[in-house]
Amino acid sequence: MEIGLYLKKLRECRPLVQNITNFVVMNTTANALLAIGASPVMAHAVDELEDMINIADALVINIGTLDERWVDSMLRAVKIAKEYEKPVVLDPVGAGATRYRTSTALKILESGEIYILRGNYSEMKALIGEKSRTRGVDSAESGKDAKDIAMRASDIFNTVAAVTGKRDYVSDGNKIYGVDNGTPLLSRVTGTGCMVTSIMGAFSAIAPPLEATVSSLVIFGIAAEMAENEAPYPGSFHVKLYDWLYRIDGVLVEKKKRVMKIEP
Amino acid sequence: MEIGLYLKKLRECRPLVQNITNFVVMNTTANALLAIGASPVMAHAVDELEDMINIADALVINIGTLDERWVDSMLRAVKIAKEYEKPVVLDPVGAGATRYRTSTALKILESGEIYILRGNYSEMKALIGEKSRTRGVDSAESGKDAKDIAMRASDIFNTVAAVTGKRDYVSDGNKIYGVDNGTPLLSRVTGTGCMVTSIMGAFSAIAPPLEATVSSLVIFGIAAEMAENEAPYPGSFHVKLYDWLYRIDGVLVEKKKRVMKIEP
Amino acid sequence: MEIGLYLKKLRECRPLVQNITNFVVMNTTANALLAIGASPVMAHAVDELEDMINIADALVINIGTLDERWVDSMLRAVKIAKEYEKPVVLDPVGAGATRYRTSTALKILESGEIYILRGNYSEMKALIGEKSRTRGVDSAESGKDAKDIAMRASDIFNTVAAVTGKRDYVSDGNKIYGVDNGTPLLSRVTGTGCMVTSIMGAFSAIAPPLEATVSSLVIFGIAAEMAENEAPYPGSFHVKLYDWLYRIDGVLVEKKKRVMKIEP
Repeated sequence: MEIGLYLKKLRECRPLVQNITNFVVMNTTANALLAIGASPVMAHAVDELEDMINIADALVINIGTLDERWVDSMLRAVKIAKEYEKPVVLDPVGAGATRYRTSTALKILESGEIYILRGNYSEMKALIGEKSRTRGVDSAESGKDAKDIAMRASDIFNTVAAVTGKRDYVSDGNKIYGVDNGTPLLSRVTGTGCMVTSIMGAFSAIAPPLEATVSSLVIFGIAAEMAENEAPYPGSFHVKLYDWLYRIDGVLVEKKKRVMKIEP
Repeated sequence: MEIGLYLKKLRECRPLVQNITNFVVMNTTANALLAIGASPVMAHAVDELEDMINIADALVINIGTLDERWVDSMLRAVKIAKEYEKPVVLDPVGAGATRYRTSTALKILESGEIYILRGNYSEMKALIGEKSRTRGVDSAESGKDAKDIAMRASDIFNTVAAVTGKRDYVSDGNKIYGVDNGTPLLSRVTGTGCMVTSIMGAFSAIAPPLEATVSSLVIFGIAAEMAENEAPYPGSFHVKLYDWLYRIDGVLVEKKKRVMKIEP
Repeated sequence: MEIGLYLKKLRECRPLVQNITNFVVMNTTANALLAIGASPVMAHAVDELEDMINIADALVINIGTLDERWVDSMLRAVKIAKEYEKPVVLDPVGAGATRYRTSTALKILESGEIYILRGNYSEMKALIGEKSRTRGVDSAESGKDAKDIAMRASDIFNTVAAVTGKRDYVSDGNKIYGVDNGTPLLSRVTGTGCMVTSIMGAFSAIAPPLEATVSSLVIFGIAAEMAENEAPYPGSFHVKLYDWLYRIDGVLVEKKKRVMKIEP
């Protein structure tokens, strides 16, 4: 997979990524998109969804701080994106923690064609109907069946599915990739999962879904590793993470990537 | 007071802190909670309040950017927290600046059992019915009667009350503590008061209210002092503040704490 | 123009700036205002607008993440500000990207007396009725007619108008200033345009509109140049930007300012 070339293409195209996301990470995901070389926009008003999605190259939906009005916007946005043939990336933040989040994520999954679905182990497990112990929006929980969860989610929801954790698993229903880039320090900064989902939105504009997902996870993971080398504490690490999303290039990707194709 | 032991316990338990807070500080308070070793979640939809509070270990209410829908969520959340016996911490941001904020804070205080109430001098003064000159949400104003304000607030609202300022005063109605840790540079970063309130939420899950409040103020104040030593300007200081919330331990607390029990 | 003296005056007066702004930049604009020496407050509830504007020294309206309820608040706030004779600064984020944003910005411009209007080239072009290609909320587009756009916007809307870009143009209908301070790295951090608009709000409290606008652009641009010298990557640059908004003084302004009066 030519991750470096996708990165180059992203920076040439500078895709406009429309985000309907949560209040906690609006700033950080916008900054992650700018750092990597994309262009973010945040709009949730029903009155402007169509105009905005029309000019956008991809749509990212993140349910981290939802309520009925925002859910309404999300559902409409997914429908409009389908009409305009724009890829949609979904981050089901907190699915399994509350029934409202699980059911909202499922509604979005059913309402349109989702290009990429990314969640942590317990969120993804909740979506495919297994009991999970999502504790808030973070989850230290992970399991040996993460690979299976990715495959089954891909199958059930007819999308590329990523289950992120110590090792990330990405499946399009046929192929499976494992990504080992990253660092546990990411869990000490809020919204790092949301950031990588947003970056998947940017790559969606210029790559097929499996490639967009794996590229995002590898690049974000390497940027995190480089950031941690410079700054092993969460505040400084967070700052350096943006620096490295900006600095990373194809050479660094080739040198540091830890990705493998796995037999299903 | 064994502040270092409470810190150790917090990190072992990693309490889940549910926040209904303001848009300005959602990201910063989530990062402060992660840095100290707790787990934040932000949820305000009425449809998921019960599910979320059920799994949470504490609830933090902050009225920094309120409107009628958010106030409704706050009032319901406090009621649910009471039912589920989860401690509630209240930050009455801007009480005294507008009648709406003062009355909302009072409604919340009346609607349930508040574990800890933390405000600055003019906010707390407004809540106990004295004329104050709250100017927006910051307040340079402080007074010789801050100790009395803390005692009276504790008495009137039947809660542990903290009046923060150059010296922080904490009272449970009987005992009073003074905390001198901190630095004026904290007033040059938005949401530092909100951060310490969130941290009180985390300590509430594992300590009695007086101990939770004093521990939070001491630890946050020391982290700020350490951060300022490394970075005396607000942007860099803000970043180092998270670093030190992560790095601080019982040894540093013992060495740097400036807390005393005061005769009422 | 005595920019250094205005900066000194701002820090002495510490104006309270009331912001109705977008979710993405609430934290960053609050921090920019604190760093420069002003005092920010964010309030959007109709129930407290009058109380807050009454104690505020200036009002900043930013339509970056609008919806019908927020637009209602904005329109009411502008009316109240007029009544209380507080200066209003408008940032028409994304005008031209969606009809909703363009029409909302125009409604605000019509509803009251706007002290300063600041937008990028394509936003301002959209507002004066010319076809623009606003792509989301950033815009790399700029044109040789930016100076004319500034003059015409000032004329049409009866306000001081700033068209920001590589060179910023500021016009009060008669005079025109060009400001060359700044760095392209600003476009890699979200909300830097919103930050400078907020700072214009602070200067509005203590200076005439043309002087407030030019002072803000010069000071913010110099702070960005100093930040980039220390940190040429977006995460670290963003942090240093606050540091330099705090550190900048009249001496640095005199040494680094690149501002000129231009013949219309």
